[in-house]
Amino acid sequence: MDVIYRGKTKDVYDKGDGNYLLKFKDDVTGTDGVFDPGANTVGLSIEGAGKAGLKLTKFFFEKINDAGIPTHFVDADIENATMTVKPAEVFGKGLEVILRYRAVGSFFRRYGKYCNEGDKLDSYVEVTLKDDERNDPLITDEALEMLGIMSKEEYKVLADLTRKIGEIVKEEMAKKDLELYDIKFEFGRVGEDRHIALIDEISGGNMRAYRGDEYIEPLKLEQIMLA
Amino acid sequence: MDVIYRGKTKDVYDKGDGNYLLKFKDDVTGTDGVFDPGANTVGLSIEGAGKAGLKLTKFFFEKINDAGIPTHFVDADIENATMTVKPAEVFGKGLEVILRYRAVGSFFRRYGKYCNEGDKLDSYVEVTLKDDERNDPLITDEALEMLGIMSKEEYKVLADLTRKIGEIVKEEMAKKDLELYDIKFEFGRVGEDRHIALIDEISGGNMRAYRGDEYIEPLKLEQIMLA
Repeated sequence: MDVIYRGKTKDVYDKGDGNYLLKFKDDVTGTDGVFDPGANTVGLSIEGAGKAGLKLTKFFFEKINDAGIPTHFVDADIENATMTVKPAEVFGKGLEVILRYRAVGSFFRRYGKYCNEGDKLDSYVEVTLKDDERNDPLITDEALEMLGIMSKEEYKVLADLTRKIGEIVKEEMAKKDLELYDIKFEFGRVGEDRHIALIDEISGGNMRAYRGDEYIEPLKLEQIMLA
Repeated sequence: MDVIYRGKTKDVYDKGDGNYLLKFKDDVTGTDGVFDPGANTVGLSIEGAGKAGLKLTKFFFEKINDAGIPTHFVDADIENATMTVKPAEVFGKGLEVILRYRAVGSFFRRYGKYCNEGDKLDSYVEVTLKDDERNDPLITDEALEMLGIMSKEEYKVLADLTRKIGEIVKEEMAKKDLELYDIKFEFGRVGEDRHIALIDEISGGNMRAYRGDEYIEPLKLEQIMLA
């Protein structure tokens, strides 16, 4: 199979049958050997990290597909740490869509004059550009349209899907006594009609979760969710 | 008269008759003795800077009032470098509303992956929080509403007024062969009905202007506009 793209934590292959194959790697992002989902560089390799991330991704994508929300997910082969997906066109050079239930992380760093750390937020959605060099800047729906990245109509669909997907993830986590503070998603245009669909993965590294006051780190989160 | 507030470049007094008085100072923001409108600290004092800023502010506010757009401006006393205004309530702890016709400054620093410096923008409006400590972060209409700073309806009014005011400023500058690249405004709620009105000032330090390829610095801009 031809390699389409080699990413920090996943490689993408063309299956030749119209679908793509994502190969989950054991490399995780981090700094100085410590796993940090927010980091932009691969910090270390953890045996089994790829399979664990794929298992959780499969778990959530199946639930999201079942809810009738479009995703790129076709199926997953846990043993080989691969996932078959429909090809997707990303918005611009790639975006992250962030859904926040609590004021933590970069939201609190930006808006700490107006909130306390950990304040509840009402399913707040924001978009950042994937741009390591410029520290993934925040961008408004207006600027996304002006720069030709996405129309305002697409933004509305994307924000609406984000809230629906977030509810599914949040409820599944609540069943394991975990509270979802925030989560990031990627979306793309899929199919001939270029409809907006959830792409990439949903693993521990995509979210912040707490059990009571205790932060649950990504690999432990995956163990709890898949137990 | 009681001092209400002492600012970096203006002091505010209560006139006792329902109006406030703004006293324009000769202090200008800057770094290392160089005038820089984007700086957050007073860098130097330039004799006549206060009066020049007030003259240009009077010039623009009268045109904007004449166009039927609400402002806090009542009248100006150039000799004493004071301006009488209606009291206004700022949004939250203060916002800046930025109107951009060209991709320069912080817009280009953020979105340089998607545009070239100086690209034309179609009256792009964005809002930043006045927060020196956090480098005046960008904020979306959604976050403004969630943090109780402004409703989405108010945001629409504010963005619409911003574009209208920008057109007036831009046209006046074009008469002097100047091109307006970007400009920042402040708005507040004025009167018993708390309608949205333009407040603060419109002087050289609020905008970036060019004549051809030449950047026109704030004091020179005021000289050109008032000649």
